[in-house]
Amino acid sequence: MSDVASQGADLMRAAVIDRHGGPEVIELRSVPVPRPGPDELVVRVAAAGCNNTDIWTREGAYGSGSGVRAGWLGPLSFPRVQGGDVCGTVVELGAGVGDRDLLGARVLLDPAGYDGPGRDASVADVLGSERDGGFAERVVVPAVRAHRVDDSPLSDVELAALPIAYGTALGMLERGGVGEGQQVLVTGASGGVGLAAVQLSGARGARVVAVCGAHKAAAVLAAGADVVVPRDGDVLTAAADAAPEGYDVVVDLVAGPFLGEGLGLLRRRGRWVVSGALAGSDVAFDVRRLYLSDLTVVGSTMHTRRVFDDLVTIARRGSVRPAVAATYALEHLEAAQRALATREHVGKIVVVPSSC
Amino acid sequence: MSDVASQGADLMRAAVIDRHGGPEVIELRSVPVPRPGPDELVVRVAAAGCNNTDIWTREGAYGSGSGVRAGWLGPLSFPRVQGGDVCGTVVELGAGVGDRDLLGARVLLDPAGYDGPGRDASVADVLGSERDGGFAERVVVPAVRAHRVDDSPLSDVELAALPIAYGTALGMLERGGVGEGQQVLVTGASGGVGLAAVQLSGARGARVVAVCGAHKAAAVLAAGADVVVPRDGDVLTAAADAAPEGYDVVVDLVAGPFLGEGLGLLRRRGRWVVSGALAGSDVAFDVRRLYLSDLTVVGSTMHTRRVFDDLVTIARRGSVRPAVAATYALEHLEAAQRALATREHVGKIVVVPSSC
Repeated sequence: MSDVASQGADLMRAAVIDRHGGPEVIELRSVPVPRPGPDELVVRVAAAGCNNTDIWTREGAYGSGSGVRAGWLGPLSFPRVQGGDVCGTVVELGAGVGDRDLLGARVLLDPAGYDGPGRDASVADVLGSERDGGFAERVVVPAVRAHRVDDSPLSDVELAALPIAYGTALGMLERGGVGEGQQVLVTGASGGVGLAAVQLSGARGARVVAVCGAHKAAAVLAAGADVVVPRDGDVLTAAADAAPEGYDVVVDLVAGPFLGEGLGLLRRRGRWVVSGALAGSDVAFDVRRLYLSDLTVVGSTMHTRRVFDDLVTIARRGSVRPAVAATYALEHLEAAQRALATREHVGKIVVVPSSC
Repeated sequence: MSDVASQGADLMRAAVIDRHGGPEVIELRSVPVPRPGPDELVVRVAAAGCNNTDIWTREGAYGSGSGVRAGWLGPLSFPRVQGGDVCGTVVELGAGVGDRDLLGARVLLDPAGYDGPGRDASVADVLGSERDGGFAERVVVPAVRAHRVDDSPLSDVELAALPIAYGTALGMLERGGVGEGQQVLVTGASGGVGLAAVQLSGARGARVVAVCGAHKAAAVLAAGADVVVPRDGDVLTAAADAAPEGYDVVVDLVAGPFLGEGLGLLRRRGRWVVSGALAGSDVAFDVRRLYLSDLTVVGSTMHTRRVFDDLVTIARRGSVRPAVAATYALEHLEAAQRALATREHVGKIVVVPSSC
């Protein structure tokens, strides 16, 4: 990763990739500051969160089944600036942006563009994947994707930890119907989405049993889990013992063989919500388990407009404070992504442009 | 199956089983007419529908995984009168039944008892499994399970075709969110629940593609399917061609390998609702299919109070007219169940006490 300083008012520093590959394909470059089109605005990036999806998109791993390298939503265009989680300040408004008060506002960007106007429309593009994202000094987005968070008690770095991980987790909780007094099991609880699910479930008044590596137990308990089940032991028995009447919801980022084995952990009408497959994507089970007990296996990708609005409310109230494991300067994005891939941290890794 | 005539005012004919086994364990006997306890009533059976669950319960097949013969909800008590689908006339009220006008009313019985007071409580007992059912001249049930259908344009035989098959299908449609204008695929469409799902989906304004044996296609089209896909061909390709934009809901009574192969038939946010496993209960799929497209696999057993109330409304309006394949006299229940097991019919098989 080369290091190029910003060279003037019309240039900015950005981490660019020209092809799929390992972290070595990330190049810090001086590029033209993007200008807003109609109904768009420019945000000066204060902080940009890192996510596993950045790594998988960079690697083109979403296309692996088809033998073609691709992002989640299809082939990527290059050059591309990644980074879907952005908190920053609005510095320029394009023509047609109705709310001129946005200029100067602190905003959290919705990483998603949608395929229709509804509150439950599907994700059609993602910041940093189908369009340039926040691993840069400036980013241009449609104005509707900028949500004001001036009054949030959270820092810029904390806010930038929220969109993808906490949005995905909140989407899972919504689709799984997690509510007060429920028993919730979270697998992969020390990861970005897992830890978010622990915190957000706790904030909803659920009792949370979390599965993670034993060396991360203290951090996951600190984030609000009621019980931690070590990943390396007999997870099934320990998880069953921790909720003798069964779980209302399992929030699963792990999948693999555990999904089939674990369905018996659910109580009647329980929901198994899955949004990742760290242990493998091949799952198998006896479908009688599902229908004789009215169970549901729910897949969940990211969030919807409805869910993101709820997340912005949480952000403004500061009702959940995301754990931040480390902050890296933009010029060290490559190191940040290498650290992310080791999975040794608990909490989010966030990138900050050192001068803006 | 022996044939014993009713021998007096205090005796009635009933089809009794004393143990699990084949249809030969069914014995027609003269037994005491049951008397109502507090809050119960006696119904003179006009018609009693047959269901696959009668056969599986008689065989004890629900316990096969554990090596123990059992009904759906656990071990059966003997002697037992089966028959969960009952239409008849109230002939006696027990103490404490508030609505004395029930006497003489035509009623449809809710086969389910529930584990709590809520509209979405779970099934705790089933008529003909945990308590004596309708393969007899009289049956006793809690008064709350008797729903008036005096004004229904449907015959007693048609009404007796509804509770379990149409209740189960309606529960699947509810849990799958089938609505107007949606694309719905029904597998096992010529069976009791499958045909009910075809009719009820059509009544909701959905477009229905039905999978069944080619020789049953005409009957399934007559029941309201828009397209029939023959079961013995390339179902996946034909089903995909029949709905190029994908299905909102698959109502699946078949499961087995088709479930994993077929998930790709669903459009984004689609629901695969399963309540049977005629092709086998082992299912396997790539869970990324589920979560990258926000798909859901929903298990569904029977119905809830809410669903049964909706079914009674449908019954009273006659907005769906169930297909009846054959009617058997009670003394020929054994033959009726043998016919049911051959799966050669389309529509319900209903038993009628020849003299009441």
